Amino acid sequence: MLPGVGVFGTGSTARVLVPMLKAEGFEVHALWGRSEEEACGLAKELGIPFHTSRSDDVLLHQDVDLVCIYIPPSMTRQIAVKALGIGKNVVCEKAATAVDSFQMVNAARYYPQLLSIMGNTLRFLPTFAAMRKLLVEGYVGEVQVCDVRVYGPSLLDRSYGWTCEDLMGGGGLHTVGSAVIDLLSYLTGTRAQRVHGLLRTFVQQNDTIKGIRRVTSDDFCFFQMLMGPCSGGACCTVTLNFNMPGSFLHEVMIVGSAGRLVARGTELFGQRNGSKSEELLLGDGGWAGPDVKDVPMPHLRGLGAMVKALRQSFQAHQERRLWAHGPVAAAPTFEDGLYVQTVVEAVKRSSYSGEWECVDIMNKEPDPNHNLCEALQRNKN
Amino acid sequence: MLPGVGVFGTGSTARVLVPMLKAEGFEVHALWGRSEEEACGLAKELGIPFHTSRSDDVLLHQDVDLVCIYIPPSMTRQIAVKALGIGKNVVCEKAATAVDSFQMVNAARYYPQLLSIMGNTLRFLPTFAAMRKLLVEGYVGEVQVCDVRVYGPSLLDRSYGWTCEDLMGGGGLHTVGSAVIDLLSYLTGTRAQRVHGLLRTFVQQNDTIKGIRRVTSDDFCFFQMLMGPCSGGACCTVTLNFNMPGSFLHEVMIVGSAGRLVARGTELFGQRNGSKSEELLLGDGGWAGPDVKDVPMPHLRGLGAMVKALRQSFQAHQERRLWAHGPVAAAPTFEDGLYVQTVVEAVKRSSYSGEWECVDIMNKEPDPNHNLCEALQRNKN
Repeated sequence: MLPGVGVFGTGSTARVLVPMLKAEGFEVHALWGRSEEEACGLAKELGIPFHTSRSDDVLLHQDVDLVCIYIPPSMTRQIAVKALGIGKNVVCEKAATAVDSFQMVNAARYYPQLLSIMGNTLRFLPTFAAMRKLLVEGYVGEVQVCDVRVYGPSLLDRSYGWTCEDLMGGGGLHTVGSAVIDLLSYLTGTRAQRVHGLLRTFVQQNDTIKGIRRVTSDDFCFFQMLMGPCSGGACCTVTLNFNMPGSFLHEVMIVGSAGRLVARGTELFGQRNGSKSEELLLGDGGWAGPDVKDVPMPHLRGLGAMVKALRQSFQAHQERRLWAHGPVAAAPTFEDGLYVQTVVEAVKRSSYSGEWECVDIMNKEPDPNHNLCEALQRNKN
Repeated sequence: MLPGVGVFGTGSTARVLVPMLKAEGFEVHALWGRSEEEACGLAKELGIPFHTSRSDDVLLHQDVDLVCIYIPPSMTRQIAVKALGIGKNVVCEKAATAVDSFQMVNAARYYPQLLSIMGNTLRFLPTFAAMRKLLVEGYVGEVQVCDVRVYGPSLLDRSYGWTCEDLMGGGGLHTVGSAVIDLLSYLTGTRAQRVHGLLRTFVQQNDTIKGIRRVTSDDFCFFQMLMGPCSGGACCTVTLNFNMPGSFLHEVMIVGSAGRLVARGTELFGQRNGSKSEELLLGDGGWAGPDVKDVPMPHLRGLGAMVKALRQSFQAHQERRLWAHGPVAAAPTFEDGLYVQTVVEAVKRSSYSGEWECVDIMNKEPDPNHNLCEALQRNKN
């Protein structure tokens, strides 16, 4: 039986998510927005019976068993951890920092019977599911190089907000790079050991963001990841450029010793060494869902595929809170979310230091009195 | 009046160059090859009256006024410097090291009346000439990012040779990267200040290179260049991958504040911010010349365009040794060659050190007794 859903967020993703949930048979009972007006407006538009700007009203709503959190990164941890504590299943977007992600991992570990997945959507896209299958089957041989390029128009909101602020989780690396980092670890089955990166904010002011305000989040980001476990792993290069209005390009290429696979948008192509031309391995397949300007097609379709997987997962059980692992086995866990956030922060560190940075995943929460302790230690010596 | 030409080299470039020279009206009087057999074979094939394996026989040939040097990088300096010393005009390929390049610069400075240009061919390609013109006219606004990708099959010769050896000038960075480095400085009118790179040799042995022999030259190279003069310059990313048999991709994209230009192969596309789609700015234009498997089309056509420019340059004068600057003004000088070689070596250094490396162009020859001097200095202290 399908659980009742509560949705956090009124942005473009939440706006497309609700119709997708409904189409799969979920009932969306409650919507949370940062302001009453925002919540009310979207609830009316999407036909959601209850709306609020107080998070507890959704979390404690008796018909809500699954919470979908698509809000600014800096607020995600708080809602996600609380939702798990109240006993709700959680699908959420990335947090703003590794510390936030670590706390989410702790909560998820504490309630293993609850569903807790990152709403990273590229893994569910049939294109990448097929790509992974072919990689496992050895289509490209040993993976040598992964080359990802995402080009598109500015990610900034119309008005000044978190998308403009590096520390609030804005920028191409955090917003789009996260999904790419997760995808590459999913496809290759390995994780980044060392990273090197360069971030730039080419457009610091525009028509609506001016005066004393300045964009600090990156609109160009380039990074490399050396994948583990040993030094002979694949080398990933990722180029994100959001200074290209009027176009959207999403290309993931994996080159190996025996051939290569390229996902262009939602189409998958391949070429084995020795064959003369590329073959189309998975077509576009048509898209009956909505076409949304702000959400790139691979993300949009991935979101649709994730909702479908959620439906299958919950349908497997009679009790509306229970779910089956199988259909959502591919989904990124909160631990994957922590890994991604760790890589994002290492790339930012590298952009400052100019050096290769190691990806060390947090295994205990940093002591908030860390500086104090250091000072005490120095006194001892 | 056109000068008589002597050609050094029997490789694939020399093989296409000779017919191009003849088509423009040059007479090719002499051919040099590393062995008598190689020289004899190609001379017969191309109808060149004189062939030899002794370099002086070409350099001192009375009918030769222009020497074209397309030989392994490690031998280039010696022939080029000697040719200038004998009073011949020189077109040559890159040298193997910055020290070699520096000695070539010295020779070129010593004989300013002689033509001395690097046979780097991309500058002459109409595509890039048009791209540069549009950049100067402000089509893309302020240049932010240059993104270059060259993918293709292995650059290794069938048998073991200099192409397999990093120190002999083999590898993707040295062979193809050089042309890209030169092109980007030509297009943007700036030079790299700092570089960061990563080189890999994924295929260290193959069917013909095996046993104790191992390839040391790179088949994958990724590098970034921060262009000068100040820190606000463009950021260039270059990806070279020669593990992709059966395909050849040559893409140069320049993104600026007002739009972008992309050269795909020999076609030029552009899109201004605000317009909905790309426009074709310069078509393929057809190619009546030869189609050579080993030489990528942009290089092949660039070579053709350079030969045409040489003809115009020499035709401007009655005396067969004199030439006009105008038609070859765009050509890279030996000083450009030294710059390119310096960047190549900085990228290699960066790949070892993992750090950003500065591009410091040599202005005096390093003391061959450098290590000895250091030891003496240490003794003094």
